[in-house]
Amino acid sequence: LTSKLPDVGTSIFSVMSQLAAECGAINLAQGFPDYDPPQALTEALARHARTSGHHQYAPMPGLPRLREAISHKTAAVYGVAAPNPDTEITVTSGATEALYAVLAAVVRPGDEVLVLEPAYDLYGPAIRLQGGTPVYVPLRVPEFTPDWDQVKAALSPRTRLVMINTPHNPSGAVLSAQDMNTLAELLADTNAFLLSDEVYEHMVFDGQRHHSALQVPALAERSFVLSSFGKTYHATGWKVGYCIAPPALTAEVRRVHQFLTFAVSTPAQHALADVLADAEQYRTLPAFYQQKRDLFVGLLQASRFELLPVPGSYFALARYHQVSAEGDAAFAQRLTRECGVAVIPVSAFYHDGLDQGLIRFCFAKRDETLRLAAERLCRV
Amino acid sequence: LTSKLPDVGTSIFSVMSQLAAECGAINLAQGFPDYDPPQALTEALARHARTSGHHQYAPMPGLPRLREAISHKTAAVYGVAAPNPDTEITVTSGATEALYAVLAAVVRPGDEVLVLEPAYDLYGPAIRLQGGTPVYVPLRVPEFTPDWDQVKAALSPRTRLVMINTPHNPSGAVLSAQDMNTLAELLADTNAFLLSDEVYEHMVFDGQRHHSALQVPALAERSFVLSSFGKTYHATGWKVGYCIAPPALTAEVRRVHQFLTFAVSTPAQHALADVLADAEQYRTLPAFYQQKRDLFVGLLQASRFELLPVPGSYFALARYHQVSAEGDAAFAQRLTRECGVAVIPVSAFYHDGLDQGLIRFCFAKRDETLRLAAERLCRV
Ligand SMILES: CSCCC(=O)C(=O)O
Ligand SMILES: CSCCC(=O)C(=O)O
Repeated sequence: LTSKLPDVGTSIFSVMSQLAAECGAINLAQGFPDYDPPQALTEALARHARTSGHHQYAPMPGLPRLREAISHKTAAVYGVAAPNPDTEITVTSGATEALYAVLAAVVRPGDEVLVLEPAYDLYGPAIRLQGGTPVYVPLRVPEFTPDWDQVKAALSPRTRLVMINTPHNPSGAVLSAQDMNTLAELLADTNAFLLSDEVYEHMVFDGQRHHSALQVPALAERSFVLSSFGKTYHATGWKVGYCIAPPALTAEVRRVHQFLTFAVSTPAQHALADVLADAEQYRTLPAFYQQKRDLFVGLLQASRFELLPVPGSYFALARYHQVSAEGDAAFAQRLTRECGVAVIPVSAFYHDGLDQGLIRFCFAKRDETLRLAAERLCRV
Repeated sequence: LTSKLPDVGTSIFSVMSQLAAECGAINLAQGFPDYDPPQALTEALARHARTSGHHQYAPMPGLPRLREAISHKTAAVYGVAAPNPDTEITVTSGATEALYAVLAAVVRPGDEVLVLEPAYDLYGPAIRLQGGTPVYVPLRVPEFTPDWDQVKAALSPRTRLVMINTPHNPSGAVLSAQDMNTLAELLADTNAFLLSDEVYEHMVFDGQRHHSALQVPALAERSFVLSSFGKTYHATGWKVGYCIAPPALTAEVRRVHQFLTFAVSTPAQHALADVLADAEQYRTLPAFYQQKRDLFVGLLQASRFELLPVPGSYFALARYHQVSAEGDAAFAQRLTRECGVAVIPVSAFYHDGLDQGLIRFCFAKRDETLRLAAERLCRV
């Protein structure tokens, strides 16, 4: 069997988590918290596990009560008209499935998809599996902001889709309201759709705000906006996300979703619907993660790592001062083995493995984990 | 947005379930039980919902303890060497995701995929989304057995994959050991892979046995074998299935799986791992469903529906004696609205909507549900 993705190995997140486990290293590599979801949510899952009738297929687009809760929440958070749960919201097996479903629904052989790099590792391969061509535009280092002139120059009549991610993984950069408006203007002359990956929507710091594609009407009308309960509720292992898009776009996402996974865990959807009305979790999330960021950044000041600013997400990038000429991937491995802290080399987010001398830390960890990791990192 | 699947509507299973709900009809359409999973399983889910550390990403290929349990179970049930959990077993978001992942991993533009019809509604569209061409070979009606000469004639140098489903949805037909050997001979001269959808593996009646592709070495070496905990544990809404394949094939499935969904619900995987060692559930399943089949078939003897034999699965096909010239789809709708029993028209399993005058009942229902449905059906 000749591989359709011969150059694609096992996801870096799996590789580094496994290495971390083997070495007994602290895992600041793969993005997930080392604490549990709010008790209200885990208790809700336990309750629905014991509820008769909550174990068979959920409706293909998602449980109606969960889609309604998503609709209300979206309107409340972004001050937009509530998306129609029947025609504009689809619950997916994590934002991962939503990403893949949008690409499979939209991208045809020969289409170009514009990707701002560094980018999440699935974007490129998932585009290529549809016969599409990823067109990469680099974000400006070290701010990781888009150069909109470069984006404009990269748009072509074959551009089918533009992918953005804000707050950005791995850099934490947050697109401004101005960025979103500029993008809307650029796309106005095109037939391109927008995939806006907003899974870190509730992790924006220093009094700044997340700007959703849903808030710019000229973008919203052509956008697939993705989010993830895993990120917001410390439940990455539940694999529940969603896609908001206008009815005609949602119809195409569902056409694929029904064959990709059909539906999402019924007890998990019930549990999430139970807690989503309470805004407490996502209202307090920015402060929760800002405290972790500040703790981690503060602790690393005594180290040889130079942290870049972290406007959002639960990731921090660091420049390291190389002693040898080894690349960031080798450095990340060595840090895991020798220092006992696993990280992600940022080259894994570039299709050509571009090495910027940067590594990514995930700071979604208990304070004592961050302290222990920082202690080890300060010894490097 | 021009659809990539313009001729594909919402899955018939969603459509009929929704119609059933609207009409307050008994839903014998979409395949799912109206009883709950074994209490040991629901209690296990409640327990893991409350277990700290069981809420983050599972390893991409599946939880090791679940893959080990699948390996042991497979060896015990089929008398084959235990598949290697590390290299041959992948846990997926239901057999649906496994089907899609295999197709996305194997099928390239221009490839042919041989499908025996009637076939599950996702096969054709999912093949086409990869740029592949489904080549349909009809099963012989009313036995729904393959005509292997026709299969042989349909094989071509471009045949990349052959898809079989035993026990068969919608007919319940079960491939014999002889069928499996014949298929192995046919494929021996080709480079085609086999996708063997065996999700109803534990629903074979009258003392007959399921014959897995895993039991025929010449097939196993080129097969992706799929199963589903949803079917075996009355938990269709949990969306956990798996794929067994030789290491080189598993590697390709995982290459896609990591971008389709990445991983499957951690608490659900733990719960399933807890109960899988106990063979009770799947050992008793044939008798459990045979009793339901016999009850349902017996009750419908007083009706105008002529049931075909049901060697396996939880579906029964019926010939109905049309009063009008309406097609099976219209008849199914009318049965739902007027008689209060929702069913699936078998034409939905043919790419060209071939109408055989057959409808499908799902008898995975409580005895009282089957009695009530039969009462209504006898009035038609
Ligand atoms: C699906 S595993 C990767 C988790 C993640 O989003 C990240 O580490 O970037
Ligand atoms: C995924 S909904 C369809 C369930 C099923 O397998 C069937 O009814 O055939």
